[in-house]
Amino acid sequence: MKITLAQLSFHTGNFAGNTQKMLAALQLAKTEGSDLIVFSELATCGYPARDFLEFQDFILESKKCIEAIAVHCHGIAAIVGSPEPNPKIEGKDLFNAAFFLQDGRVKQIIKKTLLPNYDIFDEYRYFEPNHIFDLVEYKGVKIALTICEDLWNIDDNPMYLTTPMDELIKLGPDLIINIAASPYSKTQIQTRQEVIMKNAAKYNLPVFYVNHIGAQTHLVFDGGSCVADKNGDVFDELAYFEEDQKTYTFESGKVELLNKIASKVTQRNQWQDLEAALVLGVRQYFQKLSFNKAILGLSGGIDSALVTYLAVKALGKENVLPVLLPSQFSSDHSINDSKALCNNLELPFETIPIEQVYTNFMKALDPFFKDTAFGLAEENLQSRTRGVLLMAMANKHGYILLNTTNKSELAVGYGTLYGDMCGGLSVIGDLYKTEIFELCNYINRNQEIIPIHILQKEPSAELRPNQKDSDSLPAYEILDQIIYYYIEERLGPQQIIQKGFEAQLVQKTLRMINMNEWKRWQAPPVIRLSKKAFGPGRRVPISGKYLN
Amino acid sequence: MKITLAQLSFHTGNFAGNTQKMLAALQLAKTEGSDLIVFSELATCGYPARDFLEFQDFILESKKCIEAIAVHCHGIAAIVGSPEPNPKIEGKDLFNAAFFLQDGRVKQIIKKTLLPNYDIFDEYRYFEPNHIFDLVEYKGVKIALTICEDLWNIDDNPMYLTTPMDELIKLGPDLIINIAASPYSKTQIQTRQEVIMKNAAKYNLPVFYVNHIGAQTHLVFDGGSCVADKNGDVFDELAYFEEDQKTYTFESGKVELLNKIASKVTQRNQWQDLEAALVLGVRQYFQKLSFNKAILGLSGGIDSALVTYLAVKALGKENVLPVLLPSQFSSDHSINDSKALCNNLELPFETIPIEQVYTNFMKALDPFFKDTAFGLAEENLQSRTRGVLLMAMANKHGYILLNTTNKSELAVGYGTLYGDMCGGLSVIGDLYKTEIFELCNYINRNQEIIPIHILQKEPSAELRPNQKDSDSLPAYEILDQIIYYYIEERLGPQQIIQKGFEAQLVQKTLRMINMNEWKRWQAPPVIRLSKKAFGPGRRVPISGKYLN
Repeated sequence: MKITLAQLSFHTGNFAGNTQKMLAALQLAKTEGSDLIVFSELATCGYPARDFLEFQDFILESKKCIEAIAVHCHGIAAIVGSPEPNPKIEGKDLFNAAFFLQDGRVKQIIKKTLLPNYDIFDEYRYFEPNHIFDLVEYKGVKIALTICEDLWNIDDNPMYLTTPMDELIKLGPDLIINIAASPYSKTQIQTRQEVIMKNAAKYNLPVFYVNHIGAQTHLVFDGGSCVADKNGDVFDELAYFEEDQKTYTFESGKVELLNKIASKVTQRNQWQDLEAALVLGVRQYFQKLSFNKAILGLSGGIDSALVTYLAVKALGKENVLPVLLPSQFSSDHSINDSKALCNNLELPFETIPIEQVYTNFMKALDPFFKDTAFGLAEENLQSRTRGVLLMAMANKHGYILLNTTNKSELAVGYGTLYGDMCGGLSVIGDLYKTEIFELCNYINRNQEIIPIHILQKEPSAELRPNQKDSDSLPAYEILDQIIYYYIEERLGPQQIIQKGFEAQLVQKTLRMINMNEWKRWQAPPVIRLSKKAFGPGRRVPISGKYLN
Repeated sequence: MKITLAQLSFHTGNFAGNTQKMLAALQLAKTEGSDLIVFSELATCGYPARDFLEFQDFILESKKCIEAIAVHCHGIAAIVGSPEPNPKIEGKDLFNAAFFLQDGRVKQIIKKTLLPNYDIFDEYRYFEPNHIFDLVEYKGVKIALTICEDLWNIDDNPMYLTTPMDELIKLGPDLIINIAASPYSKTQIQTRQEVIMKNAAKYNLPVFYVNHIGAQTHLVFDGGSCVADKNGDVFDELAYFEEDQKTYTFESGKVELLNKIASKVTQRNQWQDLEAALVLGVRQYFQKLSFNKAILGLSGGIDSALVTYLAVKALGKENVLPVLLPSQFSSDHSINDSKALCNNLELPFETIPIEQVYTNFMKALDPFFKDTAFGLAEENLQSRTRGVLLMAMANKHGYILLNTTNKSELAVGYGTLYGDMCGGLSVIGDLYKTEIFELCNYINRNQEIIPIHILQKEPSAELRPNQKDSDSLPAYEILDQIIYYYIEERLGPQQIIQKGFEAQLVQKTLRMINMNEWKRWQAPPVIRLSKKAFGPGRRVPISGKYLN
C-alpha cells in the first residue's frame, strides 16, 4: 500500500481554499499511484477555528468540504480532519474527527479521545471526548487512526485517564496514523519527535504522522510531518515551515519512501528554526488578512532592528517601511544605527521628528501638568506621540504597524500602552531580551546585517536624558531568568529564590509582572515561540491581589 | 440544625483578606447559635483565579486559609470552597472542592463533577472532574453537597453525561447545599432561580444556595443566594449586588428563616439590576486595584454621559473627572450638553481643545499625507489625540481612564483603536446602543439626570463636518438585532436572513464584525452583562477568512 502524507497550510474558515488545496494534493497523489492520502487535523476548517466552531453554519461548510473531497476518492482513499456533530443530545455538540473517505463517500469517522485544554488549547470547550475504539480496515491493513493529543498521554504524569493506543493495540493494528495540529515552540520539535518515537517503540508499530503547517494569528505550525518505523526510529521527515507532500510504501510491516531516498533526519538548529517560525508567522498574518505592507518605528535599538530584518524576510524589502521618530532625547547613534540598518537591508526609510507635536501636547496639558516634575506621564507622552504618527501613516497608506515589544518588557510592564505597545502583531513579544541578542548574532553569522553597534550598546528607551534600561530594571541576564522561571516554569516566589536569586529582587519582579497585567490584556497578538507566551495561552486576572 | 448562608465578596489571591472575612462571618454565625456556615465556591482564593491556579504556591496559600478557618470550627461546622490537589498522578492536578470543616479539622472533601468550559468558563483547564459520589453526614442530617454547575445539567440538551444529583439521590440525602460562583448576566438571575427550583422539585429536597458576590475584572457576581423548599418554591433570598448573611433552621425536612420574616422573593427590575451590576463592576475594579479616581472624555453623546453617571455612582463625584476635548468639528450642543450633564451631576470638569495638537500632527505628517483626501486616517488622528491627552492626565495624577465604547460599535469596529477605544475598563462595552437609550431613560425616570437633548439627538462621532453614525451604519434598531443574533444567539448568516433581515445588510454586518476582530483583541476588559460579551468569553481568530 502506498501512503501519501500531505502537509498543507490551511486558512481558518476558508473552506473553498482549503478544499481546493486538498483536491490538488489528492490529484498529485493519484499520479503517484497512492492508495491513501492523509491530511492534518481539522483540515477542512483550519486550526484553531476557535469559537467559529460554535456556529452551525461553520460546521455545515466543513461538512460540505468533506463531501467535495469524498467524491474524488475513487482509486484512492483520504483521511481528512473535520468537526463532526455529536448525534447524541448528551455531551458537547461536536467531535474533533478524522474522516476516512473511500469509494466516493465517508466510510468511517474516528473521533479524538484526548482533548487538550491547557495553554493555548481549548478543545474541551467545543468537543466531546471519544469513548469507543475502532480500527480502520483498508486494503487488508488495519490502521490505528488517532488525532494529535491521542498519542501524547505517555508521560510519567499523564493528564488523562485513558490512553487511546492502549485500547487500540488490543484490536491488533498494523500501523498508527496520527493527524495533528501541533504548534511550534522552541522545545516542541524535539518533544514531538520523542512522542512519536515512544509510541512506535511502545506499540511496536510504524507511525505515519501529518502535522499542520502555517500560522494563524498568534500560532505558528511548523509541519515536520514524519514517518517512524516500528523500532521507534524516525526515518524520514517532511519539510519544516513549508508545505510538503511525500509518498511511502507500506508492505508486510515495512515502510519505505517511494521514488526518493529517505532524508536523514535533520539535526535542528534552534536559531534557524526560530527565525523560520517568526518569518512564517509574519508572512501568513499578512497574507491571511490580505495585507502586504508593514510599517514600524526604528528606535536605534536591537528590538526594532530585529523586527525590521524579519519583516523584510517575510514580506520583501519593497513592502517594509521603517520610520525614524527622533526626539530631543534621541542620541546621534540611535539615528545613525537605524540608518546603517536600513543601508544594510537596502531599505528606504522615513523620518518624522516628534519634538514639535510633543511640545504642543505639553502646551495643551500645561494647566494640569504645571508645577509637576518630568516623569512617567511625559515619557509615555513621547511614546504615544510616536504610536499615533505610525498609526496615522498605517491608516493612510494601508500598512499594518508591526509591534517591537520583547517578552522581558512585556513581562515587567516596561513599555507604554498605546505607545510602543501599538501594532497589529507583536513579532518578538515571546523572545526575552537576552534571546534577541543571540538571535541577532545568529543572523549576523556570515555578515553584519544588524549593525554591530546596536548589539554592543546598552539598551535605552531614550525617553529622558541619558536613560538606560538598567536604571529601572535588573540586568537582563538575571531578569530574564526570573521571568522564565515564573512564566514558563510556573514556579512561585519561594521556589525561584531557592534557585539562588535575591529574595527582594524576585519579589519585586513578580510584583511588576502581576501589576502590569492590565497592559498585557490590551497588547497585540504575540507570535508564540515558547511553551508559555503572553496572550491566549496565559490567562490571569487583572484585579487580583497575588504577589502584588 | 441552624444553617447560615454567607454571601461575601472575595478578592482573587487576597488570601489574608478572604480568610479574615470568613472568620468574621463565622464569628457572627456563632453568636446566632448556627451549626453550619456555608461560603461560596473557591472562597479561599477567589473566583475566577484563572491561571494563578497553576502555581503550587497559590494552592498552598489556599490550603493555609482552610487550615486557618478549620481551627475556629468548634461548635460550628463550615463549608468552604477551595482548590484541592489531585493525589493521583493520572488526570489534571487539581479538584474544585468543597471542604467540610468540623471539630477543628477537615472532615470531608467533596469534589466538583461538572466543570463548565464554555463562554468565560475554563474549569477543565485546571480541574479533574469528580467520579465518586458521597453525602456529608452532620448532626444526623445527610447533605448532598454540590458545587455550582453540578446542579445545572437538567436541561433538555444536557452538556454532560453525568448528573450528580441523580447519583447522590440514591444515597438518601435530606437536603441539597450548593456553593457557587455564578456570574451575573441580564438573563442569569431568572435562569438561576429556575435551576434551583427545578432541582428542589425534581429531588423533592430543600436547596441551600450560596453564590459569590463582587466583581473581578470583566465579571460581576450578583449574589442572590437563596433557599428553596422541597416543593421547589424559592422562599427566601439574600441581597443582590451586596454582601449578606442569613441563618435558617432546618428541622425534620422543613426550612425556616431564623429570627426574621422570610422576604417575599422579589420581582426583579432588569434596568435596576443592570445599573447595579455596572456600578458594582466599576467600584470593585477600582477597589481591587487600589485606585479611586476615574477620568473620562465627555463627547456630548449618550455613551460618555452614561459612563459618567455610573462612575459617579460607583466612586463618588469627588473621584470622577470628565474632560471635554472639543475639535473644530464639535458642535455647540456637544459642549453644552456635556456641561449640562456635569451640572446635573454637580461635577467639575476640564476642557482641552484638541485642534492645536491635531494641526501639529497634520503638519508633521504632511510629507506623507499631501495630495490625499481627508479620510479615516484623519478621523482616527483626532480620536487618538484625545486618547493621548486623557492618558497623559491619567498618568500624571493617578486616574484610571474609563472607556465608553458600546457593544454596537465594538461589534462593527466603529471606533478608533488607541483612540476612543483607550481605557482601563470598558464600562458599557456589553450594552447595545439601543439598550443604552433604555437604561438612560430608566435613570431619568424621576428627574432629568442625563440631559434630554443627549437622548434626543442623532448619534455622531463628530470627526468630520456634519457626520452622523447613520452615514456609515444601519439604524441601530436594525443593527443591534443583527449583532444580537450573531453574537449572542450564534446564528449564521442564513438563519439571520430567515428572521426577515435584508440579506445584503446581514452579510455586510457580519463581515464588519469578523473583519474588526483585530481591534477587539486589544480592547480593554468589558464588564460582562449578557450571555456573550466581547472578551475572554468569545474567542475567534483574527486571521480567519469566514464571512469576511
